Amino acid sequence: MNIETALRQKIDSRTKPAGSLGKLEEIAFKVGRIQQTLTPELCNPAILVFAADHGIADEGVSPCPKEITHQMVMNFVHGGAGINVFARQHGINLKIIDAGVDFDFPAGSGVIDAKLGRGTNNMLYQPAMSIETCHKAMEKGAEFVRQEFENGCNVIGFGEMGIGNTSPASLLLHKFTGIPLDDCVGRGAGHDDAGVRHKCEILQRVAEKYYPATPVETLATFGGFEIAMMCGAVLEAKRSNMLVVADGFIATSAFLAAYEIQPDILENTLFSHSSDEKGHILMLKYLKGNPILHLNLRLGEGTGVALAYPIVRSALIFLNEMAGFEEAGVHDVRNKHFHSST
Amino acid sequence: MNIETALRQKIDSRTKPAGSLGKLEEIAFKVGRIQQTLTPELCNPAILVFAADHGIADEGVSPCPKEITHQMVMNFVHGGAGINVFARQHGINLKIIDAGVDFDFPAGSGVIDAKLGRGTNNMLYQPAMSIETCHKAMEKGAEFVRQEFENGCNVIGFGEMGIGNTSPASLLLHKFTGIPLDDCVGRGAGHDDAGVRHKCEILQRVAEKYYPATPVETLATFGGFEIAMMCGAVLEAKRSNMLVVADGFIATSAFLAAYEIQPDILENTLFSHSSDEKGHILMLKYLKGNPILHLNLRLGEGTGVALAYPIVRSALIFLNEMAGFEEAGVHDVRNKHFHSST
Repeated sequence: MNIETALRQKIDSRTKPAGSLGKLEEIAFKVGRIQQTLTPELCNPAILVFAADHGIADEGVSPCPKEITHQMVMNFVHGGAGINVFARQHGINLKIIDAGVDFDFPAGSGVIDAKLGRGTNNMLYQPAMSIETCHKAMEKGAEFVRQEFENGCNVIGFGEMGIGNTSPASLLLHKFTGIPLDDCVGRGAGHDDAGVRHKCEILQRVAEKYYPATPVETLATFGGFEIAMMCGAVLEAKRSNMLVVADGFIATSAFLAAYEIQPDILENTLFSHSSDEKGHILMLKYLKGNPILHLNLRLGEGTGVALAYPIVRSALIFLNEMAGFEEAGVHDVRNKHFHSST
Repeated sequence: MNIETALRQKIDSRTKPAGSLGKLEEIAFKVGRIQQTLTPELCNPAILVFAADHGIADEGVSPCPKEITHQMVMNFVHGGAGINVFARQHGINLKIIDAGVDFDFPAGSGVIDAKLGRGTNNMLYQPAMSIETCHKAMEKGAEFVRQEFENGCNVIGFGEMGIGNTSPASLLLHKFTGIPLDDCVGRGAGHDDAGVRHKCEILQRVAEKYYPATPVETLATFGGFEIAMMCGAVLEAKRSNMLVVADGFIATSAFLAAYEIQPDILENTLFSHSSDEKGHILMLKYLKGNPILHLNLRLGEGTGVALAYPIVRSALIFLNEMAGFEEAGVHDVRNKHFHSST
């Protein structure tokens, strides 16, 4: 019997009506298939948060000042942000990586230095980064994942911080999927209608300026340092056969880029949540994602990954710890001759 | 400043865009308001599982044989069912109560005896139970909640086991809300189309037989021992000002009955999930419930409560542990003069 059949059989013979654990059954099956075992485990979970600034922020595409990027990074290393408290709650190892913030973090701050610049170029005038820098970012992201893998981690998620970064995510969604740009652009950190209109106008001008030929070129032109690092990180997590968990709109845009490069990353991917940022649901649909949570989050930082983590654990716990019909002495409700008797 | 204003202010001054933690913010606000504090806590969480049999099961309204009720109760006390593994995962105290199972549990089995009979009457011929028995059931349910309260528990959920019990839940939904019966009847433990048709026909005959005048009379006529106990338990949880968490279709029908008796129970209620059982979404809509999880569960036992518990905890953890803008040195993104500068 192959592992898929054996997993289906194990899931269906737990003491419950078949299918009654819904999405948990799909998760248990998926993780069992990734790990090729009937008793999958999650080991040394980690979330890597990549922070970077964005040249396009100079065009007022965000309602927030750029300074918030580095201020929030300091908040991360001091343990006061959303991702800190949720990662602590679930014992998830957290790393904060400077992918290219427009600030010099003090030595000993706890921020991991992988700075590729002080923010991307303003893509209204030139591509966000060169192809070479994009490859470098992807390789850096991969390196961080390899480190976690070598520490025994087999489940990883990625978060981000970067004022203005819903703009690159919207452009990547538009360019990779062909969905009209207006449907890809949302309120970000809290735009009003006029703010969204202005953002749309700026991004329309950016979109019309470049027609890259390859996924990596698209990522370099419209992406961000943190998005490119996450993309490389996703590809490496797949190479290491880890379970990899997507967060919100911006993090998922990195999965989208990785998918365009190598579609089989989806075999190892879970989507933690469906966010309140407008384009996310379209992005998830394109990636055939069935998100675990629907909490109207739009915070980023990897918070959706952390919040969904106990649900993923529950899926494995039911598979590993629930009794089967036979051992529990419970009539197997799948057994048709019991049906006819009632 | 009253507690509601102070809570809104605390929630909005955490280091995140306002509203970006979505449903978690609503939960934090609700629990803070219940406990009248800016630092709410969940203490000694408990799930009480009430099990009972149903006379109407004799009409073949369930695809499962009645024996499964007592077999699953033994599975609960042996620790092998879904609710066991999820309650263990989250450190939730679990009690298994025989509200009226058609079986004599061996002494020392760990099942708590509150047996009101060996199943309800077959309501095709007479009301499920008398008004007196219904009151007794509600009082028993309240007693169990008082015990938990005295043990320092301030957050409680209820689960159920009872072959055939989607039928009483469907009838209660139909009778309390006026929603057409066909929309209230679903597949239960796994009916095929013919099974659902048969179930609808039987329940139609039951529905046309009785027109009770009061909520308690309705509960007695169409309910079950476990549903009536849960209804009394919900009312007592409200009296003790506990946070009370609803599970799936059958457990929520007890909240519905409690709501008809005393609408303000909703002030203390969270709805853990939106289940795959057809009528549940209509029931939640009627109760203006905004369920936490959407996992297509239909297992009952209180499993939705246990699975949603870490999300409820996350809501309080963000309120209690996240830094505010000022202490973290992060620009307050609500502050309009920063908006205009970008």
